[in-house]
Amino acid sequence: MTITPPALSVFETLESEVRSYCRGWPAVFDRAQGARLTDEDGHSYLDFFAGAGSLNYGHNNPVLKRALIDYIERDGITHGLDMATTAKRAFLETFQNVILRPRDLPYKVMFPGPTGTNAVESALKLARKVKGRESVVSFTNAFHGMSLGSLAVTGNAFKRAGAGIPLVHGTPMPFDNYFDGTVPDFLWFERLLEDQGSGLNKPAAVIVETVQGEGGINVARAEWLRALQELCHRQDMLLIVDDIQMGCGRTGGFFSFEEASIVPDIVTLSKSISGYGMPMSLCLFKPELDIWEPGEHNGTFRGNNPAFVTAAAALQAYWADGQMEKQTLARGEQVEQALLAICAEEPTAQFRGRGLVWGMEFQDPARASAVCARAFQLGLLLETSGPQSEVVKLLPPLTVTTEELDEGLRTLARCVRETA
Amino acid sequence: MTITPPALSVFETLESEVRSYCRGWPAVFDRAQGARLTDEDGHSYLDFFAGAGSLNYGHNNPVLKRALIDYIERDGITHGLDMATTAKRAFLETFQNVILRPRDLPYKVMFPGPTGTNAVESALKLARKVKGRESVVSFTNAFHGMSLGSLAVTGNAFKRAGAGIPLVHGTPMPFDNYFDGTVPDFLWFERLLEDQGSGLNKPAAVIVETVQGEGGINVARAEWLRALQELCHRQDMLLIVDDIQMGCGRTGGFFSFEEASIVPDIVTLSKSISGYGMPMSLCLFKPELDIWEPGEHNGTFRGNNPAFVTAAAALQAYWADGQMEKQTLARGEQVEQALLAICAEEPTAQFRGRGLVWGMEFQDPARASAVCARAFQLGLLLETSGPQSEVVKLLPPLTVTTEELDEGLRTLARCVRETA
Amino acid sequence: MTITPPALSVFETLESEVRSYCRGWPAVFDRAQGARLTDEDGHSYLDFFAGAGSLNYGHNNPVLKRALIDYIERDGITHGLDMATTAKRAFLETFQNVILRPRDLPYKVMFPGPTGTNAVESALKLARKVKGRESVVSFTNAFHGMSLGSLAVTGNAFKRAGAGIPLVHGTPMPFDNYFDGTVPDFLWFERLLEDQGSGLNKPAAVIVETVQGEGGINVARAEWLRALQELCHRQDMLLIVDDIQMGCGRTGGFFSFEEASIVPDIVTLSKSISGYGMPMSLCLFKPELDIWEPGEHNGTFRGNNPAFVTAAAALQAYWADGQMEKQTLARGEQVEQALLAICAEEPTAQFRGRGLVWGMEFQDPARASAVCARAFQLGLLLETSGPQSEVVKLLPPLTVTTEELDEGLRTLARCVRETA
Amino acid sequence: MTITPPALSVFETLESEVRSYCRGWPAVFDRAQGARLTDEDGHSYLDFFAGAGSLNYGHNNPVLKRALIDYIERDGITHGLDMATTAKRAFLETFQNVILRPRDLPYKVMFPGPTGTNAVESALKLARKVKGRESVVSFTNAFHGMSLGSLAVTGNAFKRAGAGIPLVHGTPMPFDNYFDGTVPDFLWFERLLEDQGSGLNKPAAVIVETVQGEGGINVARAEWLRALQELCHRQDMLLIVDDIQMGCGRTGGFFSFEEASIVPDIVTLSKSISGYGMPMSLCLFKPELDIWEPGEHNGTFRGNNPAFVTAAAALQAYWADGQMEKQTLARGEQVEQALLAICAEEPTAQFRGRGLVWGMEFQDPARASAVCARAFQLGLLLETSGPQSEVVKLLPPLTVTTEELDEGLRTLARCVRETA
Repeated sequence: MTITPPALSVFETLESEVRSYCRGWPAVFDRAQGARLTDEDGHSYLDFFAGAGSLNYGHNNPVLKRALIDYIERDGITHGLDMATTAKRAFLETFQNVILRPRDLPYKVMFPGPTGTNAVESALKLARKVKGRESVVSFTNAFHGMSLGSLAVTGNAFKRAGAGIPLVHGTPMPFDNYFDGTVPDFLWFERLLEDQGSGLNKPAAVIVETVQGEGGINVARAEWLRALQELCHRQDMLLIVDDIQMGCGRTGGFFSFEEASIVPDIVTLSKSISGYGMPMSLCLFKPELDIWEPGEHNGTFRGNNPAFVTAAAALQAYWADGQMEKQTLARGEQVEQALLAICAEEPTAQFRGRGLVWGMEFQDPARASAVCARAFQLGLLLETSGPQSEVVKLLPPLTVTTEELDEGLRTLARCVRETA
Repeated sequence: MTITPPALSVFETLESEVRSYCRGWPAVFDRAQGARLTDEDGHSYLDFFAGAGSLNYGHNNPVLKRALIDYIERDGITHGLDMATTAKRAFLETFQNVILRPRDLPYKVMFPGPTGTNAVESALKLARKVKGRESVVSFTNAFHGMSLGSLAVTGNAFKRAGAGIPLVHGTPMPFDNYFDGTVPDFLWFERLLEDQGSGLNKPAAVIVETVQGEGGINVARAEWLRALQELCHRQDMLLIVDDIQMGCGRTGGFFSFEEASIVPDIVTLSKSISGYGMPMSLCLFKPELDIWEPGEHNGTFRGNNPAFVTAAAALQAYWADGQMEKQTLARGEQVEQALLAICAEEPTAQFRGRGLVWGMEFQDPARASAVCARAFQLGLLLETSGPQSEVVKLLPPLTVTTEELDEGLRTLARCVRETA
Repeated sequence: MTITPPALSVFETLESEVRSYCRGWPAVFDRAQGARLTDEDGHSYLDFFAGAGSLNYGHNNPVLKRALIDYIERDGITHGLDMATTAKRAFLETFQNVILRPRDLPYKVMFPGPTGTNAVESALKLARKVKGRESVVSFTNAFHGMSLGSLAVTGNAFKRAGAGIPLVHGTPMPFDNYFDGTVPDFLWFERLLEDQGSGLNKPAAVIVETVQGEGGINVARAEWLRALQELCHRQDMLLIVDDIQMGCGRTGGFFSFEEASIVPDIVTLSKSISGYGMPMSLCLFKPELDIWEPGEHNGTFRGNNPAFVTAAAALQAYWADGQMEKQTLARGEQVEQALLAICAEEPTAQFRGRGLVWGMEFQDPARASAVCARAFQLGLLLETSGPQSEVVKLLPPLTVTTEELDEGLRTLARCVRETA
Repeated sequence: MTITPPALSVFETLESEVRSYCRGWPAVFDRAQGARLTDEDGHSYLDFFAGAGSLNYGHNNPVLKRALIDYIERDGITHGLDMATTAKRAFLETFQNVILRPRDLPYKVMFPGPTGTNAVESALKLARKVKGRESVVSFTNAFHGMSLGSLAVTGNAFKRAGAGIPLVHGTPMPFDNYFDGTVPDFLWFERLLEDQGSGLNKPAAVIVETVQGEGGINVARAEWLRALQELCHRQDMLLIVDDIQMGCGRTGGFFSFEEASIVPDIVTLSKSISGYGMPMSLCLFKPELDIWEPGEHNGTFRGNNPAFVTAAAALQAYWADGQMEKQTLARGEQVEQALLAICAEEPTAQFRGRGLVWGMEFQDPARASAVCARAFQLGLLLETSGPQSEVVKLLPPLTVTTEELDEGLRTLARCVRETA
């Protein structure tokens, strides 16, 4: 496939230098369906990025599309203030019946604003209010968002520097396997908490991703998550699971923490919760934590009604039974087998993942970028992650077919070979 | 009109106590068109709140609706990563041709995430990065958002307390007319800046709303804004106009600061920029400030493509000529006349406003709430604002007809009378 | 008098560039008595600076000297831990009998460490602990010390910049007469406190100097101080008077706030409290504020016993009756007359002061430095103060004779003339 | 010995509840000589605390006493402004000739104010200014002082809570042997520094004590200190050794870090530097770091001249040759042998130390307090340290005789036995 350099002029002249993804994928995309995007020149791309995990059900999923168009056609409420609407009620009831009740999760639901970072900000606020402490513990290579509250618990030095003020009130602790198993889990964290002379400000909460997506596809073991929950209970800290990228079925179950049989005190969801790429997020918490005053946290787009419509449709279509979870795990095995074969040929690479989120780490960070660049030329969209962009990240839609998955994995294998 | 208490159960049992607007308007809304909403029991409401200013073109505006459905039908890209898309290009070109060029505004455009607070966070980050200073000056009764960066420059004590950490790096200064004209403008601010012993940390920027919406419809005079711009230039501070609620034509011109003939260094837009109630925001800044590194500020929903489609359609439909501005100013005069008459009868009230944003302040804050409650019973949606919710806020769609406006204003007059 | 350039080498080669006073007074001082210092070349200087106010009773005051030598000779305890000692008891009893009881002041006494900034740090800690709030209000051109807590409530931009971190948790308000009487007192401060939307973090306390020494000899009026006390009571804020430089009789009464008939919640004393130039400080507070836990604030040199000896001797010698106060006020009138005459001849200068602290402000800041430099040549030690070092500061020992005062004032007049 | 309850009334009624040492030692001390104090009832106490390490040369050391009285008799300058004086010059020259030159140490000397916390504040300011970063790394159980800057790098949770504001800009790392040798030194610290995604704000400096006195007599190994210095160099961080309690010969050499053959970038000294218990401190730093502006850090008592006199006399008397160091090491061996014997009998205790600073840690913290209480009854002054006051701390004057040492150690053994 030959790609003519697209006419990017208005992007280059008018849009800020802060733009990023468009730099690695120099195409102007026009349409999309399922796992495929098409650019304005008619080139087709297989999407192994899925809107950074916001399109778990694929692009323009027909079931959601129908519901959305119907809603718009009938002049449903479109704005996002937290008024009571029929669309919101339908979503809440569906979320309760399809997600919370079957899992015996007691959560209250908050609409904190439509983006992940809004949800994280609300989670941190609530934890601080409940515990009356300022400090929050996060983990090495965590990513929680770009507004100041979320950025303070995000690891990436480059992003942090953008704050323009010192980011305080957060302390990083080592994520699972940070020392390759040579140091007992939570040794450092627990000593600091127990030692009255440690200098650690007692944390209100711990915020964690079960799999760090931006951080390089670092997978926390179930026993590590359980031990973390146990530590939080023992030390009177709230456990916040940021399930923005890994929730909504990405790792198999609807919540990524189900596998570990833990029940976090607070959970954030966003990205694929609307199912259609539309901004929406949730903050869930145990009912006894619901000490918010009315309007204490607000925002114009908290109740994105069109997103509620597609979200409810997605839950009905994919989560009323256990098929989605089974399929994701099966697709995950397919990926695992392929990566095993690729890494057998490429000794400088190693892979890791769960469900349908996988990463291939290269010793030479430049190699990961080269693989993604070559993949783009071959019509496959892949992104890097990790502190040095050293990990190629696989994040296909959960609805990807085995054939598409096979196609993409073969292309990946070719890219790895050709960049050797 | 008799309203049966609606079945709110799932809202009350499942949704967090933080919900707010739904408490004042105990109805479950279902559909909307233009300036009218309909609840599930078929009651109709005249909307003088317009999604807190996010529906300047009315609910489900037919022009935008057509464009949106077409886009969805043809499987346009829906997710929000900052990839180049045909929808984004169309929006950027339209924004340049219809808005920036005719006004001779040199701005670069950043998509900072889809909510107002995302835009404010990016503006503050950029200002701090450019100037290498942490401090930002805001004004009494300012409202800029709920994430930690924005909250630190927001005045409301109740919202601030929700942060759970001390909010620092911001200093409030008196907004225009804070002392009813008895103190020269900027007397205090300027002395602090000039006096090397004042104790004020030199600010990177000043952030201001031209009309404070949440703060109680406080209108800054054009000469005050000009003097502020002049002060910023003289003291090497950036001027940020937060035009999230007052931009997109709310006060007449597309930008609310046009009337004052100032050119802020940074401008934030959100709410009505998508035109259809969908989350979208912009951060505009002078090209010499565009020192962002690629990806230094990012986010999943920055490039909400369906919103670009409605945004471009709205700009084409309403801003290609000066009709919209003229109509808004005419409608504003209609409101002013009505408020003049109401306040003539009600000596404890006074009013203020510009374009189609108006406020009626009551000496007794409870009266403002009573007026809004009575209005709801009579099928008119009104909200309060101000530090003590003492101001009834009028924010009808800009597309409201003179008849609708007249109807609403008559209802308002009745509410004022009946709550006396 | 001709002064040969002294051999400063070890100061220049070994001591840090941070040294300051020694630069303006290029002499190596050797001995001192009363109001006079002698350098190693035998030149004599009349001291109108008095160790920045730490030698109110003159250099090597014979009464204190005798007590000190006796104490050292008899091997009294010299170290400073807060053990009970006979010297400490004698000081406490004297302070109670001579100072607190006659003034009906109910204060508890804390030894917070031997410097002024230690005392201020302890006062701020206590206020924050009592009120459970972080914020403290200080005033324009305030000076409270160089450690981080004190520096955050100090106005001078140059000193603040030395912190190397953003100084937060403090907000400056205009000191008395900051706007030359054109704005009502506390207009801005009170509005901010009353307006729930002002954005001011509610302060735990207000810290104030009755006369700002470093800030340029700005004298607060008694009615302003009373109004400030009243505001603090009304708004539930503690009033801290930093009497480090102005206490111990500098303005007439032992405490500088006596004239205003106010009773601050917390008072800091240092500088002349030991009477002999030795490091010592006190933090006084109303008994109901004494919620310190044992050892919650500590330090090695809190209980400087030799300083207790000279402090007790000074209180006995100078404060057992009202002579000292009367004499200071009389000497103050002598200064005032002289300054009146000088300023009559020099229209670009104005003067202000109370008791034995006076300042002459020049329109051209360089002139103030020139006056001090010329005074040094003529054997008179004077320093500048104010944000631009535009004020010549007169701070002679309280024990200065009328003849010495006259001599120094005549020299000052000559310096003003000669630098015209 | 029977001790009658002393008349403490004025301490109890007038002095703040914050007083601490006087509670454990209910006597009113009057005189002292060498290693012995005498209370007002004539009881004698052997002093194994030495003013918390501020009396390394014993109480009222005759050599220093003579010099001090001579200085006072001849009306030497007593106040502390940083004017050039003959006493200051004599001290600087002595310090250069006796301490710096023989050790080939290139330091500039700053007088930051007379207390340890003043010195730490100045060190932190300078490090931040030099590196342009806010963050500083300290160690678990560190103690650096009570003013806000120093407190932020102090470990003790009880002291930290006294701040009344969140203490930020500091991050604790594990001190040597924090995990009993099971984790490689600096594993965590180094990973955080190297990992661009760790979330650690890059530190300007690391501040460390070679032996943590307040923290429980935790002794850093020489190789650990060397590795720390190496890490600082590699990662462009300044190394600050806080030698306030361990310097001035406490561990043998004049500086406690000499044994490790490291050259810190910045060193703080206080406590025994004056030699006579008088407040004095120094901040030493490499000449290339001397970027202070004149007066950027100041204070009234920076140049405590009487303290300079005793300090110079002490350096001349004790440090002109290597006798002091040899004697301290010999005395240290005497202590070690005694502690070995005591711990052989008492299996729940263990001991550690260097030079003449030793600690005995008890499994039951109450036991350590009981030992000290019994010691007081037997005429021996001992204090506890450690996060739970679980360590009995031995800190006799360096000039203690072998007989006194033997007497005290036998008393200690008795106290351990009697509290079993």
